[in-house]
Order: sequence, then structure tokens, then C-alpha cells
Amino acid sequence: MKNYKLTLSYDGTRYNGWQKQKNTPDTIQEKLETLLSRLLGAEIEVAGSGRTDAGVHALGQVCSFRAECGMSCEELLAAIREYLPADIGALSLEEAEPRFHARLNARAKTYEYRIRTSIVPDVFARKYRYVFTEKLDVNAMRAAAEKMCGEHDYSAFCSIRMKKSAVRTVYSIDISESGGEMFIRFRGNGFLYNMVRIMTGTLLDVGTGKIAPEDIDNIIESKLRQNAGFTAPPQGLFLVNVEY
Amino acid sequence: MKNYKLTLSYDGTRYNGWQKQKNTPDTIQEKLETLLSRLLGAEIEVAGSGRTDAGVHALGQVCSFRAECGMSCEELLAAIREYLPADIGALSLEEAEPRFHARLNARAKTYEYRIRTSIVPDVFARKYRYVFTEKLDVNAMRAAAEKMCGEHDYSAFCSIRMKKSAVRTVYSIDISESGGEMFIRFRGNGFLYNMVRIMTGTLLDVGTGKIAPEDIDNIIESKLRQNAGFTAPPQGLFLVNVEY
Repeated sequence: MKNYKLTLSYDGTRYNGWQKQKNTPDTIQEKLETLLSRLLGAEIEVAGSGRTDAGVHALGQVCSFRAECGMSCEELLAAIREYLPADIGALSLEEAEPRFHARLNARAKTYEYRIRTSIVPDVFARKYRYVFTEKLDVNAMRAAAEKMCGEHDYSAFCSIRMKKSAVRTVYSIDISESGGEMFIRFRGNGFLYNMVRIMTGTLLDVGTGKIAPEDIDNIIESKLRQNAGFTAPPQGLFLVNVEY
Repeated sequence: MKNYKLTLSYDGTRYNGWQKQKNTPDTIQEKLETLLSRLLGAEIEVAGSGRTDAGVHALGQVCSFRAECGMSCEELLAAIREYLPADIGALSLEEAEPRFHARLNARAKTYEYRIRTSIVPDVFARKYRYVFTEKLDVNAMRAAAEKMCGEHDYSAFCSIRMKKSAVRTVYSIDISESGGEMFIRFRGNGFLYNMVRIMTGTLLDVGTGKIAPEDIDNIIESKLRQNAGFTAPPQGLFLVNVEY
């Protein structure tokens, strides 16, 4: 039995997210497991580094799976590429250590939220940006982003009440601007359900003056979702990479 | 009566090209004329700088139209942006001199053909690239590109027999490579039907050794379409800009 590490990119537009669900077609995990099971002639279960929501994209999602396979990695990768749909791309495949697990061994993840701030449309990026053209105070957003980093209980930035611990560490939140676009990059040891999208909405609410940067500490401490900002829509969000 | 110059970008994927045709829906000109006629309450005719084929994209197509309009350019542009479909973007609108005509006054056009040469897929560019992963001799392609420039009868690079003159001047053809992609940029005073796509196919045939760079002079002189290379598919082609 070999253990594999597969890195994928995908355009999440037409998918109900990463994770397979009963009675919900079109998840990326399900597409991948069906393809691998056919290629390898046995039922293959794939472990993703984590879920991505419906409509969220990935530049470098990582998953792992075990399989008996006579092909080389190069041959198996070529077969996967040939049969995956055009909106899922296999970037690389390698044999991993026997104990490697894409979710359990993930040390850090980076997400990027991409916003079109210009009123001039970019038709080619229309499915990959959130268009938000209100004037933004970027300095206030950067001050708020700094307060959002660290080790905290992030319940206020999660849409589903967690049974398990909601404590996570956010290492950095970087905001960059160029050519009518704003990219907000989040790196942390893990993120709760909708956490990046709620952090983004909260930062935009800071940018428009609805929330003050000084309020962030209280919002975190309150652990109440209603105190944070809106949930930014999925199409602007990309899982950039996973570190092991 | 005011005369307007409108610059557009579009994702050509779902359109039957720029030019309106009887019994063919989904042309960009038709969408635009219908919208402008409704906005301005009179039948508006739009002149494009030239046609783009079905499936070809534009970063900067230019068109002109005459209209009675009480709105400022800014107001009219905002209205156009609001009602255009998401795959057509209005970049700018200005009042032009009374005699300005987008096609008749065009001095030069630049097209870019974008090729994905890496076997690693880019899912986000899948509708905007031609995937061509055979090994290419770029030096040979550059030598052939140089021979394709100049003032010539380009009948060999046109899929439809021309009644009018097929003489055009190609000022430059630049080939650049980066990150698994090759971009071929053509600048000329005008291009025949399918000319950029046939030039691209011919350059790719040179890259794979099917045609020698020294053959280009003979191909041009023959004026026979069958002597040139294949017609590269539309999804890799972008009209970059039009100079006046």
C-alpha cells in the first residue's frame, strides 16, 4: 500500500465545496474519489487538508490517499489529469511517508481574499473577485487586521456554534493593493467555518467606518457572531497553500 | 448629435463574435446596440474597430456611435455598465470629434495569442488559453515571426478568398515566455479574416519543426492558404488595443 500526497487547484464556482455530502452532488472530494477508484480499481478515500465552502477556489489544496498502484507517480498523475474535469487541476503528485495525512499533519494554511475595488469591470476575473467599490480606509483596515492576529477563541468569526475548541492562531493578515484590486492574505494554523469570509467582511466594515479598529478586541472577546461584520461572498476566496 | 468613442473588454466565450448577423443571436455588437437604443430612446448603430471571430476575447475593443444624449459621459458610462452582461465590460467612454469613426480611423491594432505550454493545468485560465504542450523551438519561431512582418499580400494567412486587397503591414510579432505560458503579440495596420490565428498556427508548426523558418517567404508569396499552418483555436486570442 502506497501513501500519496496530491496537490490540486480548482475553480469552485460550480461545486458544493470540497467535502462530499449525502444527497449533494458536485463536491470536489466526490469527483476525485470516483475518478481515483475507477483508475485504481478499488474504493479510494481521500483526506483533504480541510473543507472549502461552496464556491470557494483553491490554488493549492492538498489531499492524501492510500492505494495499491503499479504505475509510477508520473503515470498516475498523467491519468488523473486526463480524466479530471477542466475546472479541477492536478498540480503535483508524490509518494508520502506512510503516516502522512493531509488534514492531521497540516501545520499552517494560507487563504487569500480577492476584491475588485475599481468601478472599471474586469470581465475575465468576474467569477474570482468580490466587487466592492465603496471607499475604504486601508490604514484602519491594517490596524484592525493586526488586532485580529494571535491566539484567540475565534467564535465571533464562525457561523456555526462549535462543540470543539474554537481557539486558533492567526500568524499574519496582509493587505495589498494594486491596479484596482485589494488582496487580503491570511496565514494561520487553522480556520473555523466561514472564518476567513467573516474576517474579510469585518475588515471591509472597518474600511467603510462601520466598525472601528479598536472594537476588534471586544468583538473577539464577546465570542458572539453578531458583533463581527458581514460574511464576504465565496467567489473572492482562494485557498493558497497548506504547509506541513 | 454627439459622437462617442467607447472602449470595451469582453470574454468572447459565449458569443458568435463581434459583428451582428441575421438569424445569429449573441453577438457583441447586437447586445450593445440593443442596450444603447433602449438607454437613449433611439435606434443606435455602433461601428466597431473591426470584427472579432466567435470565441475571441477583447481587452480593448473600440467602437463609435452617434446619439442625442442629455447625460454626461460619466452618467452614460455608469448606465452602460449597469446593464451590460457580466462578460462585457465598458472600460471608458468619451466624446469624440464629429468625424471620428472606430473602423475608418484605426491606424494600428494589437492582438495577443496566449498559449499554455506547461502540462500543469491552470484551471482559472482554461477558457483563455490554447493548451499546446509539444516541445517548441522558440528561436525558430522568432526567426519565422521576423519573416512574417512587413508589407505583404497576406492571402496565404486568410481563410476566406478576398475580393479587396489582402495587402497589410505587420509592424511586429513578439514572442514572450514565462511560467509555462507563451504569449505571441502581433501589431499591424490591419488583419484579414483569421489571419492572427493562422499566423499563430504557422508559428507553432515552425516550433515543432513541421515548417522551416526559411519557408515563410515562399508561403507568403504563394498566396495559398493550404501552404500555411493550422488555424489556432479562438479561445487563446485577445484583441489588446486599437490605435488612432
